[in-house]
Amino acid sequence: MANELCVDMTVESTAALLLAEHDWLILTHQYPDGDTLGSAFALCRALQLTGRSARVVCNDEIPEKYEYLTTASTEDPFIPTHICAVDVADVKLLGAELEETYGDRIDLCIDHHISNTHYARHLLLKDYSATAMIVLEVVRAMGVQPDKLIAEALYTGISTDTGCFKYSNTTALTHRMAAELMEVGIRSDMINRQMFDIKSRARIELERMALADMRFYCDGRVAIMPVTLDMIDKANARENDMEGLSPLPRQIEGVWIGVMLREKATGGYKVSFRSGNHANASAVALQLGGGGHIAAAGCTLDTVSLDEATTQVLTAIRRAVPGVESVDR
Amino acid sequence: MANELCVDMTVESTAALLLAEHDWLILTHQYPDGDTLGSAFALCRALQLTGRSARVVCNDEIPEKYEYLTTASTEDPFIPTHICAVDVADVKLLGAELEETYGDRIDLCIDHHISNTHYARHLLLKDYSATAMIVLEVVRAMGVQPDKLIAEALYTGISTDTGCFKYSNTTALTHRMAAELMEVGIRSDMINRQMFDIKSRARIELERMALADMRFYCDGRVAIMPVTLDMIDKANARENDMEGLSPLPRQIEGVWIGVMLREKATGGYKVSFRSGNHANASAVALQLGGGGHIAAAGCTLDTVSLDEATTQVLTAIRRAVPGVESVDR
Repeated sequence: MANELCVDMTVESTAALLLAEHDWLILTHQYPDGDTLGSAFALCRALQLTGRSARVVCNDEIPEKYEYLTTASTEDPFIPTHICAVDVADVKLLGAELEETYGDRIDLCIDHHISNTHYARHLLLKDYSATAMIVLEVVRAMGVQPDKLIAEALYTGISTDTGCFKYSNTTALTHRMAAELMEVGIRSDMINRQMFDIKSRARIELERMALADMRFYCDGRVAIMPVTLDMIDKANARENDMEGLSPLPRQIEGVWIGVMLREKATGGYKVSFRSGNHANASAVALQLGGGGHIAAAGCTLDTVSLDEATTQVLTAIRRAVPGVESVDR
Repeated sequence: MANELCVDMTVESTAALLLAEHDWLILTHQYPDGDTLGSAFALCRALQLTGRSARVVCNDEIPEKYEYLTTASTEDPFIPTHICAVDVADVKLLGAELEETYGDRIDLCIDHHISNTHYARHLLLKDYSATAMIVLEVVRAMGVQPDKLIAEALYTGISTDTGCFKYSNTTALTHRMAAELMEVGIRSDMINRQMFDIKSRARIELERMALADMRFYCDGRVAIMPVTLDMIDKANARENDMEGLSPLPRQIEGVWIGVMLREKATGGYKVSFRSGNHANASAVALQLGGGGHIAAAGCTLDTVSLDEATTQVLTAIRRAVPGVESVDR
């Protein structure tokens, strides 16, 4: 659904376009994360430092842990004449309300998702680890020297989208830009503690119950962790308490395939598979009508009990993963 | 106990000294970690690439997860005439056997601990995030272009000593050096998965039991997590399964002071305190005859039960941490 009316932009032409207008409304994607928020607030402040009016709008409530970012945005009221979306790959990802209001009039999109659907009039797309890295180049091209607030916002985007420089999308350029931002004198350790260390009590409680019910199969090469509605209720966990739960089983020594079985409110289970070098998660998901990538895939099993779901998952794994049963059994 | 016979070295004079001799034995500290091993194997390979003979020796067994580093060392037999210690702050930290054999004849020490006791004849000491960063400068000064094996060894040292660039000891230079090493084409995501993601089953089991017995006090501002001999036995955990356990209580939302009470084989408890911006861990530890830093401190409580230890710890916290009890109680 690429739009032939969409103009591909360079960093320089993007900076020129931003500076050519006076009032910018900056949109993030729904269920906002560190990259969309960091990119948005950094760009907002850079525009304000050049005397423009700018404001960040998000379809959903901004999680508390990102509060330090919002201070980068002053609240001067204005009627926005131009709209810019950051880190938003598809207009649907703006969220219902923002899509309804602005979906058909996005002047500019800055994004790092190669899957971007070219819904905006102008698109700056670069295959970087984070949109914040592109925004850093744009801010520079606007002639703005990143201050502490801009640098902390951009660092937040880079750090969160790379799992604190741990994921395979981290490049030499990622580290060079982090170095540049750290030279501004940012509170990188505070930011990373906020982003990666702090867990809610509900999350700890949920993790504890899920790990307690985790079972191992195939000589410990398969770990299946259930997350039931009952657990979620007992832990009194909300959606964002679930973040980063599915990789846990795969992080256990000797596990080839880690499985999370999350019970759905409508019955049945949402299944997520994680694998290392020994197995192909998507091959397993395919067996059950799902799909995904080699390292991470998923499927849905409707109207089955936990036992049935476990049996179906194990059957699929034994079919799709050669050698998962040790030869000497 | 600084030794006035110890000569302070520069990166250049260290490189010259290394190249001036032919046979080098490289010593790590006991209970080796990623920085001492990464520094040692990188230096070993750099020496071998310049036609020198070198070998790495460690007092203890090298944990399996570091195995990919050892491939950097070929096993040409030789009688070592010169000894270099890397990342070893005190001769005692070599471990009993190595200290006995080599303690009084260390020709060179390369280290980043400002607490280094100047036990070696020559010392290259720099206040960097990791000894591996100093070794990178030395390797360069030796005229060696880091290859994949050297780069992966040095990256391992930098990444592990900074908690994957998360700790406050991370600097712009840390990131710049990481960028340089990544340009060599290293498997940084594999390394970081090995170092930070993989947990033993014993560790998961121990974590689960410890979290289950964790209790909250002072309106959730204090979390106390016991690790008893019974748990360690049930989980069948070894010493290295304990790594990184003590920070857990502090990582829970709303917790000012996180406490781990580890039961000692000889009776009583080893207490470790972790704190954020709201409290001073060392002030608490001092109350109980211990000490440490603002963010991390500890003490020992001999011949007390878990209940007695908990009571003493809470009393110390209430004394040393103003406002830990909410005002409206």
